[in-house]
Amino acid sequence: MTELEHMGQKAKAAARILASAGAKKDAALLAAAAALEKHAGKILAANREDTDAARASGMRPSMLDRLTLTEARIHSMAEGVRQIAAQADPIGSVLEGHTNANGLKIEKVRVPLGVIGMIYEARPNVTADAAALCLKAGNAVILRGGKEAIQSNTAIAEILREAVAGEGLPEDSIQLIRDTTRESSIALMNLTGYLDVLIPRGGAGLIRSVVENSHVPVIETGVGNCHVFVDETADVDMAASIIFNAKTSRPSVCNAIETILVHKNIAARALPAVKAKLDEKNVELRGCERTREILGDCVIPAVESDWSEEYLDYILAIKVVDSLDDALAHIAQYSSGHSEAIVTENYRNAERFLAEVDAAAVYVNASTRFTDGGEFGLGAEIGISTQKLHARGPMGVNELTSTKFIIRGGGQIR
Amino acid sequence: MTELEHMGQKAKAAARILASAGAKKDAALLAAAAALEKHAGKILAANREDTDAARASGMRPSMLDRLTLTEARIHSMAEGVRQIAAQADPIGSVLEGHTNANGLKIEKVRVPLGVIGMIYEARPNVTADAAALCLKAGNAVILRGGKEAIQSNTAIAEILREAVAGEGLPEDSIQLIRDTTRESSIALMNLTGYLDVLIPRGGAGLIRSVVENSHVPVIETGVGNCHVFVDETADVDMAASIIFNAKTSRPSVCNAIETILVHKNIAARALPAVKAKLDEKNVELRGCERTREILGDCVIPAVESDWSEEYLDYILAIKVVDSLDDALAHIAQYSSGHSEAIVTENYRNAERFLAEVDAAAVYVNASTRFTDGGEFGLGAEIGISTQKLHARGPMGVNELTSTKFIIRGGGQIR
Repeated sequence: MTELEHMGQKAKAAARILASAGAKKDAALLAAAAALEKHAGKILAANREDTDAARASGMRPSMLDRLTLTEARIHSMAEGVRQIAAQADPIGSVLEGHTNANGLKIEKVRVPLGVIGMIYEARPNVTADAAALCLKAGNAVILRGGKEAIQSNTAIAEILREAVAGEGLPEDSIQLIRDTTRESSIALMNLTGYLDVLIPRGGAGLIRSVVENSHVPVIETGVGNCHVFVDETADVDMAASIIFNAKTSRPSVCNAIETILVHKNIAARALPAVKAKLDEKNVELRGCERTREILGDCVIPAVESDWSEEYLDYILAIKVVDSLDDALAHIAQYSSGHSEAIVTENYRNAERFLAEVDAAAVYVNASTRFTDGGEFGLGAEIGISTQKLHARGPMGVNELTSTKFIIRGGGQIR
Repeated sequence: MTELEHMGQKAKAAARILASAGAKKDAALLAAAAALEKHAGKILAANREDTDAARASGMRPSMLDRLTLTEARIHSMAEGVRQIAAQADPIGSVLEGHTNANGLKIEKVRVPLGVIGMIYEARPNVTADAAALCLKAGNAVILRGGKEAIQSNTAIAEILREAVAGEGLPEDSIQLIRDTTRESSIALMNLTGYLDVLIPRGGAGLIRSVVENSHVPVIETGVGNCHVFVDETADVDMAASIIFNAKTSRPSVCNAIETILVHKNIAARALPAVKAKLDEKNVELRGCERTREILGDCVIPAVESDWSEEYLDYILAIKVVDSLDDALAHIAQYSSGHSEAIVTENYRNAERFLAEVDAAAVYVNASTRFTDGGEFGLGAEIGISTQKLHARGPMGVNELTSTKFIIRGGGQIR
């Protein structure tokens, strides 16, 4: 038995206890939140080791910022854990129920998934977030974070484990893989028989690698090639405001947009207004020929790959289209199925867009940036699913559960 | 582009139309049911080719029976399609909805999965069942049945396609792969980018092969190593009746039991009563040492593999256990997570069994044979999921759907 299989076995044993742990889970989460704050000095010292190593290896500033913890960030990590503790316990909810003609009482009840694997990259706060959400839903978790954050992750996981054990729950409810080689990641993807699901959280490369290589069922998250379509009847100011917000409020996140499609009958009015807003943040524009005819040579000619790229940066692709149908066809071809928006005053087009676009979240007259567990009323989220099985869109604590049927009888046979 | 990719492309195009086909789907299903009956002669002729070939190749009688169609069986196939047509359309149901403080109206609505692949074995009625269920949920389907039934499946699929086209829906809503080599099966498991999910339906070998080899997300179905635990307070007559029903009413199905666990304090009374019933059907018994001490040498000594084997036959394994805890531990180790039952008069043990057994369906004082879409109020079923992601237990038309969030705004930005 490998070390990882041994971890799997311990996780399964912990999961069996967590499945009926009830309110103890919340006590453990509150203790964990307090422990994170109490031991902030230890976490910061570990984090300094990570950031020193990262700086020495020449990590770029935006990545370094994601890796860096502060007192304030640790406090907000602890607050996040407290918020999860305050949510309702999903386990044991009766989702449906009926009594058959023969007297059998059949109920469908919510139960934990069991053991969840998480593979993620540089942000150490994911360690606390993911562990807390998994625990709340009664699952054991095996965490495999990025090598850049290994000292921070180890410190955080150790503190969480102690706190959980202090409240009488198994410390192996939360386990962290210390080996951050590619091999450990592959081994986790092959831990069938122990893991019920594997959730990758990070960039497109990580997600693709996990989806392609995992033998454990995967929930694909977070790749967002999102669009705003400016219909011919759009309010131009609203369109410019939504595009500016969806592109520039936080370009590095998956619900930011990458391409706008503009109806040809409004392009001459809308494009200059959009450009004027985007110029405030020096957004680079890459456009089709018709876009360049309107906006001029400041727009870089778009090439085919621009329609599929997730820039995650101050770059926006622009295409002028002939009709709603053309916009729908473009989105059907290039969308990653995350978040898509139309800006329109036309009722029929709004309803067609909502009905026909195949994505986790489809908007009329609002920014795609709202695709988020908190905004959608799910509480904290573990990621945003872009697949259709099991969960689609922001995944909160309910999406980390399964169901079972329980049947109470009086001797019925069939 | 391979022929299968071409099928995938046609399926995706069909799925886009089916997604908003509404009541046309029911018209198509009713037309399909009528066409099956009208062209029964054509189906029977094709089926005769299959059964002749099967008889020539020495197929065993129970398999041959599954393969054989009759007028009556075609009628019941058509009736099954009509029942699916009569069910409520799941698509467009609003599952949740709220309005945010900023006025955003957020709804979670039911949508089709998209394109479903089905891999199945010898029973040709699965062709009609699966096609009808997928269509009802607004999905296109690519069917890959067993080679034994290829002529029957081809005839049925052709009739369904024509009927669907006659009602103005794409004939490519239903496609059948005519190549029944292992290669075509592997190719289907690699059809990522076209298939949203692959559902294998058949024996343990088929399921395992698909789960291990598929790159498309799989819903694992139907392997059932199911148990009845006879607690020390059980009503012995009830226990014997439930065991007899769960073992012998249809031994070849996945919700039949394979092993019984009997509390040591009731074994001397219960085992002879159970044996007396099972003797009516000449059920072969394989027991532990304590079982043999009570029932004698007519019980074959059980070996380790008996605890994990799915006999699907008139064979039952028996183990005497010391306690509910031992029964729970045995089930946790050997159960395939399908259906598990306790027979008890003890309230606390009943509730513990329901809470702690990790299976799709957990019973008190009833036969495991009730695990079925119809019995659970889901209507027709496409299979019984034994995994925890997406769907668990009998899968009806709702389990062939996904959801999306639709958001109506008035210019909100974040």
